Amino acid sequence: MRVVIIGSGAGGLSTASNIRKYNKEIEIIVITKDKYVAYSPCAIPYVLSGKIKSFDEIIMHDIEYYLDKDINILTETEVIEISPTKNLIKYKRLDDTKIKELKYDYLVIATGGIPAVPPIPGVNLEGVFTVRTLEDGIKIKKWAENCEHATVIGAGLIGIEMAYGLKHLIPEVDIIEMASQVVPRSLDPEMAKIIQKYLEKLGVNVLVGKTVKKIIGEKRVNAVKLNNKKINTDMVLLATGVKPNISLAKKAGIKIGKWGIKVNEKMQTSVRNIYAVGDCVEVKDFITGENTLSPLGSTAVRQAKVAAKNIIGKKCRFRPVLNAMVSRIGNLEFGSVGMTEINAKYHNIEAVCGMSKALTRARYYPGAERIYVKIVCNKDGKIIGCQVIAKEGVSERIDAMSIAISQHLKCSDLCEMEFSYAPPLSTVVDPFVPACEEIVEKLQNG
Amino acid sequence: MRVVIIGSGAGGLSTASNIRKYNKEIEIIVITKDKYVAYSPCAIPYVLSGKIKSFDEIIMHDIEYYLDKDINILTETEVIEISPTKNLIKYKRLDDTKIKELKYDYLVIATGGIPAVPPIPGVNLEGVFTVRTLEDGIKIKKWAENCEHATVIGAGLIGIEMAYGLKHLIPEVDIIEMASQVVPRSLDPEMAKIIQKYLEKLGVNVLVGKTVKKIIGEKRVNAVKLNNKKINTDMVLLATGVKPNISLAKKAGIKIGKWGIKVNEKMQTSVRNIYAVGDCVEVKDFITGENTLSPLGSTAVRQAKVAAKNIIGKKCRFRPVLNAMVSRIGNLEFGSVGMTEINAKYHNIEAVCGMSKALTRARYYPGAERIYVKIVCNKDGKIIGCQVIAKEGVSERIDAMSIAISQHLKCSDLCEMEFSYAPPLSTVVDPFVPACEEIVEKLQNG
Repeated sequence: MRVVIIGSGAGGLSTASNIRKYNKEIEIIVITKDKYVAYSPCAIPYVLSGKIKSFDEIIMHDIEYYLDKDINILTETEVIEISPTKNLIKYKRLDDTKIKELKYDYLVIATGGIPAVPPIPGVNLEGVFTVRTLEDGIKIKKWAENCEHATVIGAGLIGIEMAYGLKHLIPEVDIIEMASQVVPRSLDPEMAKIIQKYLEKLGVNVLVGKTVKKIIGEKRVNAVKLNNKKINTDMVLLATGVKPNISLAKKAGIKIGKWGIKVNEKMQTSVRNIYAVGDCVEVKDFITGENTLSPLGSTAVRQAKVAAKNIIGKKCRFRPVLNAMVSRIGNLEFGSVGMTEINAKYHNIEAVCGMSKALTRARYYPGAERIYVKIVCNKDGKIIGCQVIAKEGVSERIDAMSIAISQHLKCSDLCEMEFSYAPPLSTVVDPFVPACEEIVEKLQNG
Repeated sequence: MRVVIIGSGAGGLSTASNIRKYNKEIEIIVITKDKYVAYSPCAIPYVLSGKIKSFDEIIMHDIEYYLDKDINILTETEVIEISPTKNLIKYKRLDDTKIKELKYDYLVIATGGIPAVPPIPGVNLEGVFTVRTLEDGIKIKKWAENCEHATVIGAGLIGIEMAYGLKHLIPEVDIIEMASQVVPRSLDPEMAKIIQKYLEKLGVNVLVGKTVKKIIGEKRVNAVKLNNKKINTDMVLLATGVKPNISLAKKAGIKIGKWGIKVNEKMQTSVRNIYAVGDCVEVKDFITGENTLSPLGSTAVRQAKVAAKNIIGKKCRFRPVLNAMVSRIGNLEFGSVGMTEINAKYHNIEAVCGMSKALTRARYYPGAERIYVKIVCNKDGKIIGCQVIAKEGVSERIDAMSIAISQHLKCSDLCEMEFSYAPPLSTVVDPFVPACEEIVEKLQNG
């Protein structure tokens, strides 16, 4: 049996490793346009910031590592066509014109996402970048060395991480966001304000509610034009989102949904022996039940496990997503899971919210840091979202709330929950509790 | 209406504060033998270690703080008798013989615990201590200043925290534990071994599987006698557990259970208008359904909220406990929630366990630290316990598992759970997952 996997990102390589973990016989071939495989693209901003010493460090494994596991990887190779009726793909090396064919028993599409480039004049100028691959990271770092001013367009997660990273290489960094706040998809305004202030404290200029109308330059960028002003700049980074890379699947007649490749709980596409995982697929949202995107490395890895298990005949399903995300800027961590209040409104869900501002440890214990918690419930008191900002423990707290939301817990349940306590590690009343109590009271008082 | 509260620990004072939070009219009187109130006894070891500068810092509030809230506190005052039929108590100042009476509408017994002193000859010698109150802490610190060698008897939580604290004041510290491991109530042997090694690395001599037969000395302690040897020592700390302080309640005819004062879900005793909270009550264990003790500050605080709400007529219940505990020795944090494998065996629960050794952050991210996770399931795969050791994020992880266990999650559920990921905060596969996968496989293979 042969499994062919298109794409060497988190989704593709995890599928390969998972199949091999459970089965030593299956032939596994990964085909990728990338030169480097098994690196962590999420870590690129931290190489720019210098926190991680070099790009080499974020390469987790080399080709030999996979060869040792009897996983074949064809790098710098492009799949041209999928032929579901013949169970074969056509492919060619990037530096060659010769097209080859390869039969498969199972095919896994893990083609990932491609940066969504906004329709702004000038996006093709030299010095305008998107960031997706390690090579993008290397090019950006090199270009940044000679810059006095950089402009990041889009203050989503990648935008602010990159702005923070670039600030370590470039004296002036502006981040320009169309929405009236940073991280609009994952944080509510009052939480976003904390992140914005922190970014500003770190020296990044944050411009929210502003649109870049034009990127100006002859051959290379030298300014961006906003509604009412022009800002000279040496570099533009487009951090305006990612869209699923679905062209191959579409051409092959595989069913595409509203957002990406349609898959069932097994990660199986509309074609029985073709699976798809990662940023190229659409998933179900746990709260709304609607289809959505979840372009996260952790999502891809979980999907890969599901696809691999199903291919080898084990039962496993991929659950609707809560889009648990976390990030870190400087020393500040923040995260979000489920719905924000704003997203709830957008989906016509009546939200009742509670906030708490507390400490991460007993107030007298050295290193106790401020923590901000926001909990979002629906009108029945069921928890549908949570946002946390602190200098520590954010990821674990988001995970705790991911478990709570997935189990349909109410804010009243969390008020009665048993949390651990020791002065060096936590506070005697967990910060989640007062936020939940606020909601309980709001609900009681109508 | 008047509420009288006996005891000024976490249970007593939290009951007072909670009643006042919801009701400004009720007269509240707290009676306590203690001189200092509203301090954090759990923090005493960290004052000894010097991490917290002085005992003053762990006093959260003074008497005036409570007076401002219209909460009266009678310190250094002892309740002599409770008369449930007359709704009154008799009390006297410690330095006086005059007995006074006080009527109550509701009485809250928050008399806490008293150190369980083992029946070893010599426990009354000078230089033999127990630790419970701030005054104990002050006395111990003073005595320790002139010691060359200290012996801590009992390697439970308090024992190892105190041994670690004392090591900063005394050149040689032995900790002697009857069981074959440290922290026998909350950790399984392989996890306890990590803590033991760390303690030893910090210079504490750990003697497990050893019993102190006698404490030797004329007026003051000068040695401890074990089965086969004598160890010279200048100080002995008895950290051999705590037992509920139930004498007042017992004398008043209030129903006592196998372990402590019997209460219902409202924290109401067998007498309608008498409540009890904190270390003096027995609670229901979530896993076994049997009665047990939960002598934790966080338990007392949650019980206090329940008692207060019920006294003022709001609905609130105290749920069965999972005994979530966390601690920190040096830079190492550890915690446990629910059943250990050993405790499960003791309760005739067939346990299936999984372990994982992973990292707290992406392996290339500076500050990534080792994390050890053990998960305990019953034979249906339902999670009944979890232990975590790491240098960060332990408390939040224990809380996440407290939520998971309280919701009857299975290990297979956790394998499919959505965990957050960013290289500076976490790993792409959460350490809980491989531990749960190990259990799933064990269960599948019978």
